[in-house]
Amino acid sequence: MNDQTRTSSRSGGRAARRAARATALPDHLRPIRPGMEGGTLKALSQQDIEKIHHTALDALEQIGLADAPPSGVEYLTRAGCILGDDGRLRFPRALVEDTLAIANRDVTLCSRNGKTDLDLSGTRVHYGTAGAAVHMVDVHGRDYRDSTVQDLHDAARICDQLDNIHFLQRPMVCRDILDNREMDLNTIYACCSGTFKHIGTSFTEPDFVAPALEMLHMIAGGEDKWRERPFVSNSNCFVVPPMKFATESCEVMERCIEGGMPVLLLSAGMAGATAPSTVAGAIVQAVAECLAGLVYVNAVKPGHPAIFGTWPFGLDLRTGAMSIGSGEQALLSSGCAQMHQFYGLPGGAAAGGSDAKLPNMQAGWEQMCSNLMAGLSGLNMVYEAAGMHASLLGFCHESLILGDDLIGQAMRCVRGIEVTEETLALDQIADVCLSGTGHYLGTGQTLDRMQADYVYPTLGDRTSPKEWAELGKPGLLDKATARKEAMLAHPSQARLDPMLDMALRERFNIHLPA
Amino acid sequence: MNDQTRTSSRSGGRAARRAARATALPDHLRPIRPGMEGGTLKALSQQDIEKIHHTALDALEQIGLADAPPSGVEYLTRAGCILGDDGRLRFPRALVEDTLAIANRDVTLCSRNGKTDLDLSGTRVHYGTAGAAVHMVDVHGRDYRDSTVQDLHDAARICDQLDNIHFLQRPMVCRDILDNREMDLNTIYACCSGTFKHIGTSFTEPDFVAPALEMLHMIAGGEDKWRERPFVSNSNCFVVPPMKFATESCEVMERCIEGGMPVLLLSAGMAGATAPSTVAGAIVQAVAECLAGLVYVNAVKPGHPAIFGTWPFGLDLRTGAMSIGSGEQALLSSGCAQMHQFYGLPGGAAAGGSDAKLPNMQAGWEQMCSNLMAGLSGLNMVYEAAGMHASLLGFCHESLILGDDLIGQAMRCVRGIEVTEETLALDQIADVCLSGTGHYLGTGQTLDRMQADYVYPTLGDRTSPKEWAELGKPGLLDKATARKEAMLAHPSQARLDPMLDMALRERFNIHLPA
Repeated sequence: MNDQTRTSSRSGGRAARRAARATALPDHLRPIRPGMEGGTLKALSQQDIEKIHHTALDALEQIGLADAPPSGVEYLTRAGCILGDDGRLRFPRALVEDTLAIANRDVTLCSRNGKTDLDLSGTRVHYGTAGAAVHMVDVHGRDYRDSTVQDLHDAARICDQLDNIHFLQRPMVCRDILDNREMDLNTIYACCSGTFKHIGTSFTEPDFVAPALEMLHMIAGGEDKWRERPFVSNSNCFVVPPMKFATESCEVMERCIEGGMPVLLLSAGMAGATAPSTVAGAIVQAVAECLAGLVYVNAVKPGHPAIFGTWPFGLDLRTGAMSIGSGEQALLSSGCAQMHQFYGLPGGAAAGGSDAKLPNMQAGWEQMCSNLMAGLSGLNMVYEAAGMHASLLGFCHESLILGDDLIGQAMRCVRGIEVTEETLALDQIADVCLSGTGHYLGTGQTLDRMQADYVYPTLGDRTSPKEWAELGKPGLLDKATARKEAMLAHPSQARLDPMLDMALRERFNIHLPA
Repeated sequence: MNDQTRTSSRSGGRAARRAARATALPDHLRPIRPGMEGGTLKALSQQDIEKIHHTALDALEQIGLADAPPSGVEYLTRAGCILGDDGRLRFPRALVEDTLAIANRDVTLCSRNGKTDLDLSGTRVHYGTAGAAVHMVDVHGRDYRDSTVQDLHDAARICDQLDNIHFLQRPMVCRDILDNREMDLNTIYACCSGTFKHIGTSFTEPDFVAPALEMLHMIAGGEDKWRERPFVSNSNCFVVPPMKFATESCEVMERCIEGGMPVLLLSAGMAGATAPSTVAGAIVQAVAECLAGLVYVNAVKPGHPAIFGTWPFGLDLRTGAMSIGSGEQALLSSGCAQMHQFYGLPGGAAAGGSDAKLPNMQAGWEQMCSNLMAGLSGLNMVYEAAGMHASLLGFCHESLILGDDLIGQAMRCVRGIEVTEETLALDQIADVCLSGTGHYLGTGQTLDRMQADYVYPTLGDRTSPKEWAELGKPGLLDKATARKEAMLAHPSQARLDPMLDMALRERFNIHLPA
């Protein structure tokens, strides 16, 4: 609560208190903020962490990675990798350690307008979307349909307006654009014209990076402006686990590095299929693969901003189908966060996805489980944090909006318990019990803390059964749909300047209507 | 996986593997079990914990508690409390410390058949119901109605069949029984005839304890048998926060102690109303009150089994209404668990309740948030863990059943990450990458771990959108209702011996039909 409302709430009686309650807090006094520090959860002990580290080094030294492109072989052997007769590149320990010494630890992911930059240091936690869903979830029709560029743009616009969604990595594929080059370019356009927040995207082929950079230079107002504050990063699946480079993605990565685009080194093994079935083993392999990626990036350009993207996924071993909503998944991402901190590197992993087909109770518990554990573990970038259903196959706008409440609650838990003379409240207890009214509801301390300490859900319902009935028993999904419609009713705050937009439409085949 | 299935899965090919998958694991090899050890989450630092402890001692010494009954004043002053002119009993530090030295740390809560006893030592975690809801939630009619003794009995029968519900504290009030004495006695009957698991109950008046003990002696087969293995504990709201004894409940407590019934020392302050609004302050007050209760119990009977029941609740400070589903609530219960461990005392707190009126997405995220944090913090007794809606006003059988899946997942997270030579899986990675098939799905290690490491939901849906559509898009609540009906279709496994039942019905006015 700022000084002004603090004074008025103390002196002005009930009306002033009500006014104080209605006043929005300045950013630095809000109960939750992007980039709060986690780290109270330690699923791995220090000894466990070191064992995982040493096993990953062993894997790199003894097993190495296959399938690097010729350019990658050149970069990596020049750096110190050893190319075996079996075509695998092996990484001596000293090379990995040297890379860890020069890797960029000071990564900030930029927003387009400079207002929501993400500082990925320490245990700072940020939540955002991600994934490559191919379906949109229609909650009222209980149906799955192909996702479109308009769906993506709408998701961007919604994210732009949600406090607790801190970045927009492209959550779904524009299936109405059949040409891959056009799809990649329209993906960037749909995201940039919908949100100022940092954007993550992907490229189907190396040759699509150049035109994308051209588009980004135009949006930024010149290549120099783009390189100064790159507001789009490349989500790069540089490996095909287990322990093989994804040849073409590595070439994409090289182009992105040359173009000044931060890269997310994304290793997405599936525990039990393309990674060991044990949580520890899947983390070992993901760490080994990302260390290889980090050597690669730093061999191309020392210090290039890269996010350590250990994204091991869970599997339902009964069926072999992917499962993202499990407790095992939460442990995978939680353990990865500790590995990132061990290296002191900016890191990301997947959490918040659900296997449920609709935003129902299962979706709620699954999304909270991994989002909460990831945040408590201090994961810098929590990808897939909202809107993701059907084990990443479906994206849902209503779920994204409800995810804002869910993540806000998780962030309150990440913030933790403040223990100070004031919060311990002995004086207040004495006052209330010995000379006061016997309750705390009207005390100055309670009113002061009402906004600064407590997170209130936007759509989450706290009415009594009686009030709820009087309100006509509103349904959670109906409320989310109403909020979605309200959010999309006005033009995008982040829309591009009309002259720029016209220039982009002249240069590129933009599918979204002007 | 037991030895037999382990062997067959290695040697017998696909059919044998399928058979192995279908075989239920023996208890000690199951991925999750009651009483797993938590403690990976530490919301409070050691210094924070000590500050809370010292502030609670200050509160007891300087403020003390009012309103003890005459018997309590006598017990407590004899133990060393100082009765002030203001009628408050103050607790010298040395008295509290002496009590901590003699308090019972070796508490086991008994089941009626000896098969599901709860060992409350260390950070062992158990989940169960609790509360005093006055409504039943009708999920399909979206309605709240008065709860009845039949609803309570059905809840007991459902809990008896759910693996991840470890005890049954009476979750709702039998509102169809208007006489309080009959209500209390029928509550015990409805619970005992529905489940073998440990039961928690409450008493409206001290005089109702004697007939209840008479009933329990009959069920146990004699007073000696009862005293040897008391399978019902008394959930005792011995304080009216802030810092006042609940006079009549203290008298109930004395009778329960005399009757050999374990007591839960339940301090249920509401942060911002009857406790400080800060998380730390609410914990301080709850700890102070429970320490007072512990002195009381040990003054009546040294070493009597008591659970340290710091149950601070959250509040929506905008409206003054209770809110149990918040992040603040999860932090309150999580911090309390650490205080219990600091004292080395068996402890309990509330988690898993929801403010949502129905088992929807909000209910899922709220229930997971606090259940997960409580478990990760190593809370011995997680009360209110399933079925609880509308900020504790409503209980829901479908939600209870879905809660079994939700808690199973939380327990998987509590179990954590196993880091051993085997789970680190270097050999396996080498095998698969260098000489194997390139994937892990068919490896012996993966099959071995399939059941012992992974928790599979019973009702949680992991089908693909296509499979889901082919199945007719089953709804989660419909599946829960079907499971409920199946569970209640056959007679209770825990039903009382017919001769005993007849004797109970002759002695007491039992409302449930025979």
